[in-house]
Amino acid sequence: MSKVLVTGHQNPDTDSITSAIVYAHLKNQQGIHAQPVRLGEVNKETEYVLNYFNMEAPVLADNEVKQGVEELILVDHNERQQSIEDLDSFKVIEVVDHHRIANFETMGPLYYRAEPVGCTATILLKLYKENDVEVPKDLAGLMLSAIISDSLLFKSPTCTDEDIKAAQELASVADVDPETYGLEMLKAGADLSDKTTDELLTQDAKMFEVGSHQLEIAQVNTVDVADVLEHKGEIMAKMDGTVKDKQLSVFLFVITDILNNDSTVIAAGNDSSKVENAFDVTLEEDTAVLKGVVSRKKQIAPVLMKEFS
Amino acid sequence: MSKVLVTGHQNPDTDSITSAIVYAHLKNQQGIHAQPVRLGEVNKETEYVLNYFNMEAPVLADNEVKQGVEELILVDHNERQQSIEDLDSFKVIEVVDHHRIANFETMGPLYYRAEPVGCTATILLKLYKENDVEVPKDLAGLMLSAIISDSLLFKSPTCTDEDIKAAQELASVADVDPETYGLEMLKAGADLSDKTTDELLTQDAKMFEVGSHQLEIAQVNTVDVADVLEHKGEIMAKMDGTVKDKQLSVFLFVITDILNNDSTVIAAGNDSSKVENAFDVTLEEDTAVLKGVVSRKKQIAPVLMKEFS
Repeated sequence: MSKVLVTGHQNPDTDSITSAIVYAHLKNQQGIHAQPVRLGEVNKETEYVLNYFNMEAPVLADNEVKQGVEELILVDHNERQQSIEDLDSFKVIEVVDHHRIANFETMGPLYYRAEPVGCTATILLKLYKENDVEVPKDLAGLMLSAIISDSLLFKSPTCTDEDIKAAQELASVADVDPETYGLEMLKAGADLSDKTTDELLTQDAKMFEVGSHQLEIAQVNTVDVADVLEHKGEIMAKMDGTVKDKQLSVFLFVITDILNNDSTVIAAGNDSSKVENAFDVTLEEDTAVLKGVVSRKKQIAPVLMKEFS
Repeated sequence: MSKVLVTGHQNPDTDSITSAIVYAHLKNQQGIHAQPVRLGEVNKETEYVLNYFNMEAPVLADNEVKQGVEELILVDHNERQQSIEDLDSFKVIEVVDHHRIANFETMGPLYYRAEPVGCTATILLKLYKENDVEVPKDLAGLMLSAIISDSLLFKSPTCTDEDIKAAQELASVADVDPETYGLEMLKAGADLSDKTTDELLTQDAKMFEVGSHQLEIAQVNTVDVADVLEHKGEIMAKMDGTVKDKQLSVFLFVITDILNNDSTVIAAGNDSSKVENAFDVTLEEDTAVLKGVVSRKKQIAPVLMKEFS
C-alpha cells in the first residue's frame, strides 16, 4: 500500500508536531499506512513535551521520505504558503485544522474537518471517538500538551469550552496535572536565552496574504519581554532585511508575555502605520504594547488583515 | 438573537434545497435561529420531492430576507462563483459540503465539514447523530431524495458505501421504498418537455475556474437524449452566446441518460478541442457520447480541469 504523509505547518509548534503523530496513529489503526513528518526543527517546548512522554519527533519531510509518496494529509494548517514547499506534487486527501481557510484548493473532493476551537488536538480527540479508537496514554499526553500550548494554559481567547473539556479528559488519561505540567512546559518553550535573533524571528513565523499584500507575523513566548527587547536594534535590522527580501507590506514581531498575558509588538515595513490603526495604538520607536493580546489567530492576524482588505 | 441563513448553491438541485432545510432544522434544535433559503427556482425533481413529503420550499434569498443578516452557512457548495451573489457582505460561519474546495476564503476560523461522499445529506445524517438529534420522518424523506438524486439511484461513481448505508437507514425512517420512489422522482426531474433552451442550459450549470480559464458545465438528466438533441441548433446558438458573454474557454452541455447511464455532450468555446483530449473522444458536429459517464463532479469537471491546468 502506498504511504500517506501527515504534516503540520512550517516552523512547527507543539500542535503541528503532535497532531501529525496523533493523526497518523489513528490512520494506522484504520489500516492506512500513514507516516507523520515535520517541515522544520522541533522547538524547545515541543522537545520538552516529546521527552516528557518519551516519544520520537516525526522525521523531516526530505526527498528520501517523500520518494514515491503521492498523498498528503495536512493537520493544523491549510494555507499553501504555510505548507510543504512542493505541495503541488501531492494530492491532499484530508485536512484537520482549526484555522481560517485561504489559499487552499483541490481538484477533487476530500475530507476536510475544521472547527473553530483552540487546538487541532481537540478535534482529533473527537475523531478518535467517532472512529471508536482509544487514545493511548502517551498520545493523550501529546494532545494535552498541544492544547496547553495553543491556549497558553487555557488563558488565550482562542480557548473554547471544548478545548478545556478535552484537556481535562486527556490529562486524566495521560495521568498528569495540567497546571503544574503546563507551566513547566510553557517555561521550557519560553526560554529564549540561547536563541539567535534569526531564530526568534523565524521559529514561529506565519505569512498571510491579503490581495496583493504579504504580511508576516512572527511570535515568541517569554517570561521576560525586556530580555528580548535588549536586542531590539539587531531585531529591527533583521526585520527590515526580511521586509525587503520578501517584499512584505508589514512584518510584525509579537513578543508574548505568558505570565501577564500581554504582547509587545515590533513593526517593520512601509505599511506599519496600519498596525497603529488596526490595534488603536501609537508605535513608539516601532514598538507598542497590546494589552490582553496573546493570540495571533484571533487577536492579531484577522485584525491586521482587515486593515488591508 | 440574530438570524443565520443556510443556503445551497445557485441553480439549486435536490441536495442543495433539502440540505438547507435539513441543516437549518438541526441548528434550530441546537438553539440557533437558522433559516433555510434558496438561490434560484426549485427544479421539477425537487418539486416532486417537496410535494411527496408535504414540505415547503425555502424562500428565495432576496433583499428582504437578507435584511440585517450577518452570518451564513453554506451547504452543498463552497466555491464563491456558485454561491450567493453578495457573499462578501456575510461572515460564513459553517460549511457542510462534499465537493472540492476552491475559491473559498475566510478571515477567521469556522466549522468546515467536507467528506468525499456522494451527497451532503449523508454527512448531515452523521451530524444529526453526533449531536444526538433525531431525524424527523419528513426530513428523512428529503435526505433520502437528495442521495437518490446525487447518486442517480446509487449508480453514479460518486456514490459511496456510506451513501448507500445512509439511504437505507433514511428510507426506513421515511418509510418509502427507495427503488420505486427513486425512479419516479428521477423521472419527474428528467421531464424536460416544457423547458426552454435557456432553462436547459441554466437549470443546473456550474462555473469552474482553472487559472485564467473559465469553464461552464451544464447538465440535464433525461430518459430520452434524442428528444433534447432535436433542438441542437438552438442550443448551440445559445451556448455560443454564453461563451462570448462570459468569456468562457469551454461551455460543456451534458445530457445524461438516467436509464442507460451514459452522457451525450455538446461543446462550445475556442478550447473545445480540450474536451476531445480530456475524454479521448472525437467531437462530431460538436457532439460526443461519453460512455458510462454520469457524474460532473467525479467524471467530468476534474478531467476537463486537468486539461487546462
